Amino acid sequence: MPSGSSVSGASLDLSRARFEVVYHLACPGTEVETRARDICIEQTVEFPESAIPNPEIREQIVGRILAIEALDAGRFEARIAYPVEAAGSELTQFVNLLFGNISLKPGVRLVRFEVPDALADLYPGPRFGRDGLRTLVGVTDRPLLCTAIKPMGLGPHELADLAHRLALGGIHLIKDDHGLADQVFCPFDERVALCSEAVSRANRETGGNALYLPNVTAPAGEIGRRAHFAKEAGAGGLLFCPGLAGLDAVRALAADDRLDLPILSHPAFQGGHCIHPDSGVSHGALFGQLNRMAGADATIFPNWGGRFSFTREACLDLVEGTVRPMGSIRPIFPVPAGGMRLDRVAEMCDFYGPDVILLIGGDLHANGRDLIDNCRQFSNLSQQA
Amino acid sequence: MPSGSSVSGASLDLSRARFEVVYHLACPGTEVETRARDICIEQTVEFPESAIPNPEIREQIVGRILAIEALDAGRFEARIAYPVEAAGSELTQFVNLLFGNISLKPGVRLVRFEVPDALADLYPGPRFGRDGLRTLVGVTDRPLLCTAIKPMGLGPHELADLAHRLALGGIHLIKDDHGLADQVFCPFDERVALCSEAVSRANRETGGNALYLPNVTAPAGEIGRRAHFAKEAGAGGLLFCPGLAGLDAVRALAADDRLDLPILSHPAFQGGHCIHPDSGVSHGALFGQLNRMAGADATIFPNWGGRFSFTREACLDLVEGTVRPMGSIRPIFPVPAGGMRLDRVAEMCDFYGPDVILLIGGDLHANGRDLIDNCRQFSNLSQQA
Repeated sequence: MPSGSSVSGASLDLSRARFEVVYHLACPGTEVETRARDICIEQTVEFPESAIPNPEIREQIVGRILAIEALDAGRFEARIAYPVEAAGSELTQFVNLLFGNISLKPGVRLVRFEVPDALADLYPGPRFGRDGLRTLVGVTDRPLLCTAIKPMGLGPHELADLAHRLALGGIHLIKDDHGLADQVFCPFDERVALCSEAVSRANRETGGNALYLPNVTAPAGEIGRRAHFAKEAGAGGLLFCPGLAGLDAVRALAADDRLDLPILSHPAFQGGHCIHPDSGVSHGALFGQLNRMAGADATIFPNWGGRFSFTREACLDLVEGTVRPMGSIRPIFPVPAGGMRLDRVAEMCDFYGPDVILLIGGDLHANGRDLIDNCRQFSNLSQQA
Repeated sequence: MPSGSSVSGASLDLSRARFEVVYHLACPGTEVETRARDICIEQTVEFPESAIPNPEIREQIVGRILAIEALDAGRFEARIAYPVEAAGSELTQFVNLLFGNISLKPGVRLVRFEVPDALADLYPGPRFGRDGLRTLVGVTDRPLLCTAIKPMGLGPHELADLAHRLALGGIHLIKDDHGLADQVFCPFDERVALCSEAVSRANRETGGNALYLPNVTAPAGEIGRRAHFAKEAGAGGLLFCPGLAGLDAVRALAADDRLDLPILSHPAFQGGHCIHPDSGVSHGALFGQLNRMAGADATIFPNWGGRFSFTREACLDLVEGTVRPMGSIRPIFPVPAGGMRLDRVAEMCDFYGPDVILLIGGDLHANGRDLIDNCRQFSNLSQQA
């Protein structure tokens, strides 16, 4: 009995709704059709085409090439459509369908994807987004200011003192350094209680609305507990590293009505996905679109010209991903960072415009002047631009 | 008041226990010291060295260069030690410390890491490992056989029929295709109930111990429910994609005494971390060491010479990571896969030796012969080698 003959005969009846994904392929022109067809198979049935047991699967499940277009030498853009039902209703399987197995192949890059209503309706996305976050901190029409409490090694009282002064200085979002977890020298609960109180106290002193965002990147069963502890303590938002603890954990935090807190995503351990231009995931798709689908309200990334290596073009692509139409999913803030300095604020404002969160860390401490004065200078510089 | 002066004066008092991480750097020889020093800072304090407020942090927290050695032209090996306390007791922060921010920089690759007892004791690792998995399926001293039920698009009854025949044919581990999640055309609960029953029935017929491993890669709050549903239904193990749902979720599954099931990890969406030889994470560290620390019992990867692009050397490095001494953490099985065919079984047995799980998918269906016969041929070939 050939293996196909045991199929029970039940047939697929999908909605025929498909969504479109754009890949860039680096290969000789003679191979591009085969490469695109390979993606259609690899990302869905992962099965020899000739052995697919029934025609409905071939027609309804296997990806479909919509178009292939030559870019520059040896590079092509392929648009492929997948059935909405193959992505299910879960972010984990959605990412798997977009780029699961083919992440293991060089020369293919996920560039962007379209989110029709049938998909977008499954993902509420960010709870606040750009407008909501502006309302929370009470700032319209200019960049928001962000910094981190650090360095690692300071204790909770020292960090709380820093947070207090940063809020006095006019910083809107004061986040944990992403290396602050729950170490013996700085336990999460103690740090978060003290820093939340310190920022609240500064807000009472200034009449401002600074938010403290503790890092809730944590073991699987602990993320929710820390987030709720933070909420109870009066934290104003959450910092999270989806590369370390999963993109879907962002979705779970964003969906939690009892939390009702904005989420700032941090790119730790996500570099491999994006730093090679001919493979991986584009900056716009990774830090923009996927973060938005998950529910982050702002997305930290290394700005061009800092300690890291992102190009101007990559940063612009990322910004495009934060705002590209995706059903009713809100636009989110880009947060360029990574060794930014006060002397680059004007340039950053010019490059990104007003819809940006500027993140400066160490440089607020490195000028030999008072920290609060440096924060005020940061604020002034961002308003002059 | 300079910002440093507000530090409360509390001083660090760490154990001084450090663990060692090996990186490869691609850069000119004139830059290698600076690059290594940069890693020491970036992965810990992420702060201008001159602004670090107290000497204890500089001495106890900042990474320490143990050695730098030239490899071939333009490549260097740097060994760096970090304080055990900076990694905390959580896998998320451990990975962050190893490679969080520097993943965003080209030309640095995490090659391997040492796990002293102070760290290993925090991570029980795989519940079964190689020996435990051999005991479960009752096979000593030869390769175990694995396959997937697919293609996506078949319904639960069709997949259960496949699973039954694969078990009759002598396959030891019958896993869900990693694209099977909880889609409308193949709901998780129905599939898992039927396939578990089908494999149990086959075991009663053959006297064998085939395991069915459903894919429990799922949204954050759903992983545990699916795993426990699978356990109740009689599944013999779990398939999980840490690249999609987080490495720490593997740890949570492995730590769950009520589950007590072996875990097979799948590399979906992890390609970016490893496919470029001068950046990212080595195959041994990513698929071997990190999977083991998390608690996977076997690690699927694309074999050389298949549909993907891993080299022979990468595969050998990966195998080394599955067995490298790591405290009391057990060795796990490498599972080479990705377009493997019956006509390569002898070669794979020769290359990997007996301590391997051979995974063949589509080729069991593609030979125009009976599926059960193909499975038996697979088994015979693996025993002749």
